[in-house]
Amino acid sequence: MPSHFQLLKTDTATAARRGRLRTRHGVIETPIFMPVGTQGTVKSLTPAHLHEIGAQIILGNTYHLNLRPGSELIRDLGGLHAFMGWNGPILTDSGGFQVFSLAKLRDIREDGVAFQSHLDGTKLFLGPREVMGIQQNLGSDIAMVIDECPPWPCERDACARACERSLRWAKQCREIATESGFLAAGHHVFAIAQGSTFDDLRREAAEALSALDFPGYAVGGVSVGEPEPEMLKQVGATTPFLPADKPRYTMGLGTPPQILKMIALGVDMFDCVLPSRVARNGLVFTPDGPMNLRNERFRTDARPISEEIVNYTTQFSRAYLRHVTIAGEIVSCTLLTLHNLHFYLDLVSQARAHIEAGDYAAWSRAWIARYEAGATARTAG
Amino acid sequence: MPSHFQLLKTDTATAARRGRLRTRHGVIETPIFMPVGTQGTVKSLTPAHLHEIGAQIILGNTYHLNLRPGSELIRDLGGLHAFMGWNGPILTDSGGFQVFSLAKLRDIREDGVAFQSHLDGTKLFLGPREVMGIQQNLGSDIAMVIDECPPWPCERDACARACERSLRWAKQCREIATESGFLAAGHHVFAIAQGSTFDDLRREAAEALSALDFPGYAVGGVSVGEPEPEMLKQVGATTPFLPADKPRYTMGLGTPPQILKMIALGVDMFDCVLPSRVARNGLVFTPDGPMNLRNERFRTDARPISEEIVNYTTQFSRAYLRHVTIAGEIVSCTLLTLHNLHFYLDLVSQARAHIEAGDYAAWSRAWIARYEAGATARTAG
Ligand SMILES: [Zn+2]
Ligand SMILES: [Zn+2]
Repeated sequence: MPSHFQLLKTDTATAARRGRLRTRHGVIETPIFMPVGTQGTVKSLTPAHLHEIGAQIILGNTYHLNLRPGSELIRDLGGLHAFMGWNGPILTDSGGFQVFSLAKLRDIREDGVAFQSHLDGTKLFLGPREVMGIQQNLGSDIAMVIDECPPWPCERDACARACERSLRWAKQCREIATESGFLAAGHHVFAIAQGSTFDDLRREAAEALSALDFPGYAVGGVSVGEPEPEMLKQVGATTPFLPADKPRYTMGLGTPPQILKMIALGVDMFDCVLPSRVARNGLVFTPDGPMNLRNERFRTDARPISEEIVNYTTQFSRAYLRHVTIAGEIVSCTLLTLHNLHFYLDLVSQARAHIEAGDYAAWSRAWIARYEAGATARTAG
Repeated sequence: MPSHFQLLKTDTATAARRGRLRTRHGVIETPIFMPVGTQGTVKSLTPAHLHEIGAQIILGNTYHLNLRPGSELIRDLGGLHAFMGWNGPILTDSGGFQVFSLAKLRDIREDGVAFQSHLDGTKLFLGPREVMGIQQNLGSDIAMVIDECPPWPCERDACARACERSLRWAKQCREIATESGFLAAGHHVFAIAQGSTFDDLRREAAEALSALDFPGYAVGGVSVGEPEPEMLKQVGATTPFLPADKPRYTMGLGTPPQILKMIALGVDMFDCVLPSRVARNGLVFTPDGPMNLRNERFRTDARPISEEIVNYTTQFSRAYLRHVTIAGEIVSCTLLTLHNLHFYLDLVSQARAHIEAGDYAAWSRAWIARYEAGATARTAG
């Protein structure tokens, strides 16, 4: 049986890769960006919009869906795909990250994390058995193991203990997914390599998890407040010790330049709430940097957001988009989210083409230079 | 030149009419419902959604668009159609109704109404010249005259004065639209017959306006707080005195049964914010009455809103729609608004078919009976 992940090309000047990932709900061309569907919807968009902008895979949040409406209910209604009307691949996180960022009164035990719901204070527990059970209920194409994400900065001892615990939980998740038939049915489970800013702990975690032969790997504990050079360093300290023939994913990243830099480090998969979150505040992405449509100077601007990007939103003038944004109209959220997610999907599509063409290093350098020059000019102006 | 309004069939058992109205942006099959696009967007939907649900014509609000972003700006950007990306017909109201319901410190003068913007208190004035100028800037396919809408209840003397003033303003609007070439260019101007609860004043207003040969007529001053029987009585006291060969419009109406009853009185055109406003609170229309999706009993309900209605929203389960509504997701507004407006458009489409088939009276009676029985059963349950 062919592997679920096919490496079509590896760049020579960088570690960028062009790949193809098979899932139960279709094939994903990598590098890929995954729109985030926290509560069973990619905020402000319908599944038809997602197809329209070329989304290949979306993300669901186990923590949120398990609190509301509940994973058993979603299972009884045919799984997350049927529930939310999205028939493409879905990756779900383990819920662990939200336990650390949202929940109250956390208690990290050897067998998992006890916490209280941020919605109503209900006492809950998530360990390997729970997160794999929930993700099985959801019918995830790619399930994530539960891990302990150390904060930044972090003491070495605390980080080492978090890595040990995460490794043990990862093993348990893999065993549970094997025994339940989840893996055999073609669902994938991805492990998460932690290690904070400690290169040796990062390498150790990556190697120990690689030995467990997971279908894919995430670099965890990045984008938790550290400066960008530190973040790139941590990813660069992890990816060389992950198996080359498995997909790699950095969770919760990032700005457009960061994504291009991560691709150059050999990362294949990304998700981030940034493009949809800023859209709801009137900020849109362009090849010349972000643009805040609330700005007075767009009041009479008949031009589209960008002449180079073609999507449903770019048929409207900046003046119109500014008007509906200022007026607080819901359609502003819909149109700007659609544009921003399309911008990200278009960016990784261009990245794929340039990896294939063999000029990824030069292209991405020029892309970032133009983007940052435009952003600077705009701030100055 | 053939008339812009063609009466295809008049019902024998009721006064219902099946018609066809030509505008600069296409033909409208009547009776028709017009989704309301207050601020240059039909709230929560894109123009693509409007096409998808079969909207034939939408409404724009002169009062709102003139305050923000301003009618000169919209004119400079190519008119309201280009501005909001809707290439079908647009009817705009005169703004007079909002002056009476929203603006502060109104002062009704012989030549128009002085008032302060509800947004920022700016002093403004709307008279025949102003409302026709604004609607010309917007490029309305159907412009409404400015009128004085008496409150309910209203003294006979005050009503008579409002009718006189409205008639004089209507004449002036028609003259302005003739002199400016607005009418000759194929834009239509509709007059508005007031008269409150006074049958003789209603008849007088209808006859006087009819003599001015407007391209269409509205029955004004209904749905301003009066009980339904009173509202039907007022419409019934007006329509017989309007020319049979011109389209008739009741502004701001109504519930589904009210629309069917108005059609039976010979009304051809409707607009109402009700279906979109209640959608934003989780209320959806079904042939068995309205249904509040926030209700606990829909938590596990795998059925669509209705088995008989097919639109993008009815592919989702009630449980899913309840979930996104309870979770406060924007997509709930989009999906429920889409459903409710489609429900109204589908209702008038059925009405057209039954007028053609000659069984409008029996069909509409049965439709209303089922709708009201379902609504009652639901309230009782
Ligand atoms: Zn596999
Ligand atoms: Zn005409």
